[in-house]
Amino acid sequence: MRIDIVSVVPRLMDSFFAHSILKRASDKGLVEVHLHDIRDYASGKNRQVDDYAFGGGAGMVLQVEPIARCLRSLLAERAYDEVIYLTPDGERLAQKAVNSLSLKKNLILLCGHYKGVDQRVRDLFVTKEISIGDYVLSGGELAAAVLADAIIRLIPGVLNDETSALTDSFQDDLLAPPVYTRPAEFEGVGVPEVLLSGHEANIEKWRMQQSLANTRTKRPDLLGEE
Amino acid sequence: MRIDIVSVVPRLMDSFFAHSILKRASDKGLVEVHLHDIRDYASGKNRQVDDYAFGGGAGMVLQVEPIARCLRSLLAERAYDEVIYLTPDGERLAQKAVNSLSLKKNLILLCGHYKGVDQRVRDLFVTKEISIGDYVLSGGELAAAVLADAIIRLIPGVLNDETSALTDSFQDDLLAPPVYTRPAEFEGVGVPEVLLSGHEANIEKWRMQQSLANTRTKRPDLLGEE
Repeated sequence: MRIDIVSVVPRLMDSFFAHSILKRASDKGLVEVHLHDIRDYASGKNRQVDDYAFGGGAGMVLQVEPIARCLRSLLAERAYDEVIYLTPDGERLAQKAVNSLSLKKNLILLCGHYKGVDQRVRDLFVTKEISIGDYVLSGGELAAAVLADAIIRLIPGVLNDETSALTDSFQDDLLAPPVYTRPAEFEGVGVPEVLLSGHEANIEKWRMQQSLANTRTKRPDLLGEE
Repeated sequence: MRIDIVSVVPRLMDSFFAHSILKRASDKGLVEVHLHDIRDYASGKNRQVDDYAFGGGAGMVLQVEPIARCLRSLLAERAYDEVIYLTPDGERLAQKAVNSLSLKKNLILLCGHYKGVDQRVRDLFVTKEISIGDYVLSGGELAAAVLADAIIRLIPGVLNDETSALTDSFQDDLLAPPVYTRPAEFEGVGVPEVLLSGHEANIEKWRMQQSLANTRTKRPDLLGEE
């Protein structure tokens, strides 16, 4: 898989892609992540990429021209499955959409900044708009990193133990059960005895009960019980 | 405001806190962000911080002891408003919670990694559990960065133009209207004429109509119309 991330502050994401599973995935040749600076596609000696909004109001808007040039240079090189714009008014991201995106070959992630991109970028180039949640960030860079992380960890071979992802929260519309590790007692607080029993069937049953109870208490909407 | 972020891979967040509004907020003395490596609180020559889950199954669990030591050293130094654990089964983050957290003085953000932290960390130390969305990440680090960014940009003085945050999506339960900037025509595609009219009242009216239409189409739940 190849992911191209287009931004006015790509260096914001440097350390993120230099560490952790993303580094491992890239070292293994499972994914290529390329960061592109919109400013490299700006014209004029000031390399301007933003300007005041037509109609007035606070906040700057990213201009259509440099972004168009950047996207077109990518689109000319290969076919992309989606050009995704990260924006709070996009479709709210959920695990099922992540699963489906993890099967794609080439993705472009476009990050807004300030008040966002000129609407014509969205009308002319963007094929999918995604929000990572109902809150506002200073830019789309963290949202792009979140989306890339969620996708990349699902690519076979990226996690050391692939069954790990299958037992995550949301993969079966259930929250995960509590987890415990050594020591068996910490300052007088033990772990549930069943987990120390070695009885696999009982452990599975306990975990399922805990998952259901957890989901019912915290997120009844996932069970259609809201 | 002071934010302490506790993680097994704090360097993952380095570039993020070194740039953009977080850097500016920190340079202005409006916020202090401190990253803490849980490994610095691990004992033994291997400085182990994780172990297999009791009861078996894929994925490692972060141990209670090093985290307890790290949190206690912070809690001994100052009073914290919240010890927040970032986890997919936490309360789903929304702008109202961000607004409220932006008024706090001292926050600890605890990042899980792998399958998460030993449940006793949550039972004994954590005062609030937050999820940034219904999807799973490789760790809580990006979630902590997202939460910190959303909070910090609301602190007065951080954004260059403070009214900018007030017109964001979600602050009034509405999605933002489309934005446009120069040029007025891009490859034959113009901008809505009203925005060029200079007629403030009409512009306001158009923006409100667009916000409502946008919200009704994409997120009727925000209007209570679902």
